[in-house]
Amino acid sequence: MNFEVITKDTRTRARRGRLHLAHGAVETPVFMPVGTQATVKGMTPEQLKALSVEILLCNSYHLMLRPGHEAVGRLGGLHHFMGWDRPILTDSGGYQVFSLSALRNIGDDGVEFRCHLDGSTHFLSPEGAVDIQKALGSDIMMALDDCLGFPAEHAAAAASMKRSMNWADRCHAHFQKVADDSQALFGIVQGGVFADLRRQSAEHLVQRGFPGYAIGGLAVGEPNEVMYEVISAVEPFLPEDRPRYLMGVGTPADLVEGVALGVDMFDCVMPTRHARNGSLFTSGGHIVIKHARYKEDPGPIDSKCGCPVCQTYSRAYLRHLFMAGEILSSVLNTVHNLYFYLDTMRRIRQFIEFHRYDELLTEVRRRSSSAMEE
Amino acid sequence: MNFEVITKDTRTRARRGRLHLAHGAVETPVFMPVGTQATVKGMTPEQLKALSVEILLCNSYHLMLRPGHEAVGRLGGLHHFMGWDRPILTDSGGYQVFSLSALRNIGDDGVEFRCHLDGSTHFLSPEGAVDIQKALGSDIMMALDDCLGFPAEHAAAAASMKRSMNWADRCHAHFQKVADDSQALFGIVQGGVFADLRRQSAEHLVQRGFPGYAIGGLAVGEPNEVMYEVISAVEPFLPEDRPRYLMGVGTPADLVEGVALGVDMFDCVMPTRHARNGSLFTSGGHIVIKHARYKEDPGPIDSKCGCPVCQTYSRAYLRHLFMAGEILSSVLNTVHNLYFYLDTMRRIRQFIEFHRYDELLTEVRRRSSSAMEE
Repeated sequence: MNFEVITKDTRTRARRGRLHLAHGAVETPVFMPVGTQATVKGMTPEQLKALSVEILLCNSYHLMLRPGHEAVGRLGGLHHFMGWDRPILTDSGGYQVFSLSALRNIGDDGVEFRCHLDGSTHFLSPEGAVDIQKALGSDIMMALDDCLGFPAEHAAAAASMKRSMNWADRCHAHFQKVADDSQALFGIVQGGVFADLRRQSAEHLVQRGFPGYAIGGLAVGEPNEVMYEVISAVEPFLPEDRPRYLMGVGTPADLVEGVALGVDMFDCVMPTRHARNGSLFTSGGHIVIKHARYKEDPGPIDSKCGCPVCQTYSRAYLRHLFMAGEILSSVLNTVHNLYFYLDTMRRIRQFIEFHRYDELLTEVRRRSSSAMEE
Repeated sequence: MNFEVITKDTRTRARRGRLHLAHGAVETPVFMPVGTQATVKGMTPEQLKALSVEILLCNSYHLMLRPGHEAVGRLGGLHHFMGWDRPILTDSGGYQVFSLSALRNIGDDGVEFRCHLDGSTHFLSPEGAVDIQKALGSDIMMALDDCLGFPAEHAAAAASMKRSMNWADRCHAHFQKVADDSQALFGIVQGGVFADLRRQSAEHLVQRGFPGYAIGGLAVGEPNEVMYEVISAVEPFLPEDRPRYLMGVGTPADLVEGVALGVDMFDCVMPTRHARNGSLFTSGGHIVIKHARYKEDPGPIDSKCGCPVCQTYSRAYLRHLFMAGEILSSVLNTVHNLYFYLDTMRRIRQFIEFHRYDELLTEVRRRSSSAMEE
């Protein structure tokens, strides 16, 4: 793995970069669509490529349980399995263990949990998380971390962060033993909303030395300003020549704000999940396609959108598909929402290249406040 | 509309033809995928075109109820509405009124029924069926017919057939009044399993004069041999220079047999519905993808298949998608099954062109009997 910073914006912390991974290059800042179960829901790989998706995120938790990471490994790895030859990032499984599974017993060695599908018991250790992601063969794997709920007291956040740092060390050591150049392991900064803990965590990870750093434990219910403050508190302690990944974030406005604070990578289920629920992003805010007002609306979702759905289909047709429960509703809505996200990232990269990122920031903040007034 | 018979097989009744419709040409014999609610479930128009689909069938019953044929008409017609610029055939709605709706009151003027969605009451008359299909703007519309159940006595079949002939006359007369050259109206031969009634029905319709003739009321539960006998009984009374359409049929073997008996057009939900249920057609019979034996099967659905799914994905991945309830399962399975059907039609057309259709017939019959032995 190699990361180059191509240019930096002059008035914000925004950076325009390029990530070289085993399965290809990724222009940053980048948004990674989520392919939880080895598929971005409703999308073929061809459709993702037509949207110029360069990297996907897949969830180790789901894949270790079904069909099993060892099976995926025997079947040639995740890329071959799902027919996607561009880069993949996998998470460690930790977040889903904490959010989806039942009966978690967390200890220093890892976490025991019950599978949300069949109730079977499993144990996830730092070393196990690396082994799972090695079997999957992702380009970027993530260290196992302890995922703190929100809100949390300083003492709880400190203990959780220390456990995460211990696990990061163990992932790092195990990775050195078992992995090769085709994969990279990122560390994850934790510490809740506390700047001192976040700094301590960042410094710990940087001392250990990772090719990339994630900021975890955000977008878990805290106010947006708190999220931005935490990013601002962490960023100065992360090396400039390594990519920064803000996990699980966020709205289009969050992406623009995050980039201004120095973030290079994002992932979120929002565009794909919202699409299936009929909530569509537009330049004037989101629309809920099932509304009766769209019943005979001949216009596109967004007249300013260049996506293939907006070129062909009316709001009336998309409403019809949604009301009829048709598969194509999810497909077309997902194409549109992913296009909106990827187009947002294209604009982000362009504004950085022109060293005028503050203009984009101003535009997005104005749009957000006017959308809220509607 | 214009139909040309390009060549005829020498030893069977198979014909190779071309149908010229308002939205383009269709090579026959042809299979029409079913796009019930203005979408072939799970497929984009681009995917259908990549499969070389030339004509779709859409259901008037569903569209008159949701979003409403008048709304579709105001939105520019069905082609524009669903983004499909190739030919469309619509049925009259009659079959679904008889199979899906509740509380049917059938009279000489039409049929009153309750919508399966909201219980609202509607009335479908022969003239109304034409008006609905005119609003939809399909290339081929179908006359309203009285759909007889199976089994039925001769007297009941005769009464039902006579009502259908009366309705066909009324559709024909109303069509002359309201429609234009951009649409064609097909008549439907009825008469149950009785050769004398089928002949009477065919002669009635031919005397009235339609640009194409359908054989209705088959594939409703009767044995396959009975279906083939009925087709054989009807075919001599249909003009050679008009297309013959066998409605709602059938298995791949049915298509091959039907063509041998002089049929030019088919439609059936089987490939698309089976796909969503995980039942996949192969040259060696169908496979049920959820079977545990495919859990780590690295091979394609069918090693002899040239479809894009078989080029890329393993049975193991397709099983995983099915077990995980992923949308992509329906999408990829549908691509494969439709390819199988369309490829069967391509082979049918080739064997007719080479005047060796009996060889295909022999091959398919041998394969069917060996598949049954498995």
